[in-house]
Amino acid sequence: MDTLPPLPLDDRNRVRRLAHYQRTDRAELYALLDEALVAHVAFIRNAEPVVLPLGFARDGDSILLHGSTGSDFFRRLAAGSSISVSVTHLDGLIYARSLFDSSMRYRAAVIHGTATIVSDDHKEDALLVLADHLMPGRRHEVRPMSRREIAATMVLRVPLESASVKDNRTSVAEDADDDEDRAVWAGEIPLRLVAGSAVTSEFTQEHTQLPPSLAYLQNRLPAFQ
Amino acid sequence: MDTLPPLPLDDRNRVRRLAHYQRTDRAELYALLDEALVAHVAFIRNAEPVVLPLGFARDGDSILLHGSTGSDFFRRLAAGSSISVSVTHLDGLIYARSLFDSSMRYRAAVIHGTATIVSDDHKEDALLVLADHLMPGRRHEVRPMSRREIAATMVLRVPLESASVKDNRTSVAEDADDDEDRAVWAGEIPLRLVAGSAVTSEFTQEHTQLPPSLAYLQNRLPAFQ
Repeated sequence: MDTLPPLPLDDRNRVRRLAHYQRTDRAELYALLDEALVAHVAFIRNAEPVVLPLGFARDGDSILLHGSTGSDFFRRLAAGSSISVSVTHLDGLIYARSLFDSSMRYRAAVIHGTATIVSDDHKEDALLVLADHLMPGRRHEVRPMSRREIAATMVLRVPLESASVKDNRTSVAEDADDDEDRAVWAGEIPLRLVAGSAVTSEFTQEHTQLPPSLAYLQNRLPAFQ
Repeated sequence: MDTLPPLPLDDRNRVRRLAHYQRTDRAELYALLDEALVAHVAFIRNAEPVVLPLGFARDGDSILLHGSTGSDFFRRLAAGSSISVSVTHLDGLIYARSLFDSSMRYRAAVIHGTATIVSDDHKEDALLVLADHLMPGRRHEVRPMSRREIAATMVLRVPLESASVKDNRTSVAEDADDDEDRAVWAGEIPLRLVAGSAVTSEFTQEHTQLPPSLAYLQNRLPAFQ
């Protein structure tokens, strides 16, 4: 893989608190985004902040968001004012020997930028990038999108120009100088989003096999071994 | 349980898109919050929105956030300007017979309000509410918090005065009028955050038993049966 340029730091994305957890490796940002399905997107409405969850996908050095052309939220995002996007993985809980030192294990990306509307010429491709991320392989199992469906959907692109990654996975939960009682158990509980068994819809014909796309999904969201 | 007053609707919290998914049952808001560990908190900094993840807990009809008194982010939140808080559960993926009708199963709360600093007189109690939510039972296994630790922590309270809940769990993924090919599998993949096996820290004395608090946690985050 080619080496990617590091994430540039600026006033908006420099981590202020626990700055040693900041990562500037663009590949780490990409990996974090590619593992996630939902982003929290913040914008300003009537001089107040609003944050909402949205499905998303990374496309090269930007992320894509999609929603209905009838969505007030989407029209506001598309108007070109500043937005902020946060994608977070809660990887575990750290049980230290005191409440004060206890914490969460996480990876979190925060992106600052503005959204632009993906033009009609590129919208179908962008929707397929979203589909390939959110439901890998599924598009080969269903009919193509119709013109009406594509027209009813707005796709926004947010470049990854100002992004920060905070990751405390490599930190240790305690050090040898810690003078708390070592007969108290301390350690970590890993947490993970996992996929359960498929639930077939009632209108699916009897004896229909589970499709290959589910295997892709469950490969990406495996349970703990 | 006493009946709780419903969530009042106003211009900020009325769901605009897919409004039939909006819930106004306060008990549903509470349940959604009580099941979550992380909130995404948005505020305005230098006329731009910023959204960051934070651990939180519900305390009656408000939520509590905690952070370092040295945190620029926390000082800004505490300054009394408007904030928005989103708590989201991704409960599954809906594989419909077309990409257009495919979607996510989710429950999402969005809260609008302002944060106030919990006074020194009530800070320890508030920190214990946070601890009881984030690591139930753990405070009985470790030493009490020190005065220095309490002084180094800021706790913010955000009242649940303007909150909306969107929940599409009860919607069906397809209806009998759907004319797509029924020989294509359609259905849902449930998703869930689950806890893995405890990883003991290297400084814990040998033969230390796993504490009861881990049983509470794993009871709340069970794997799929």
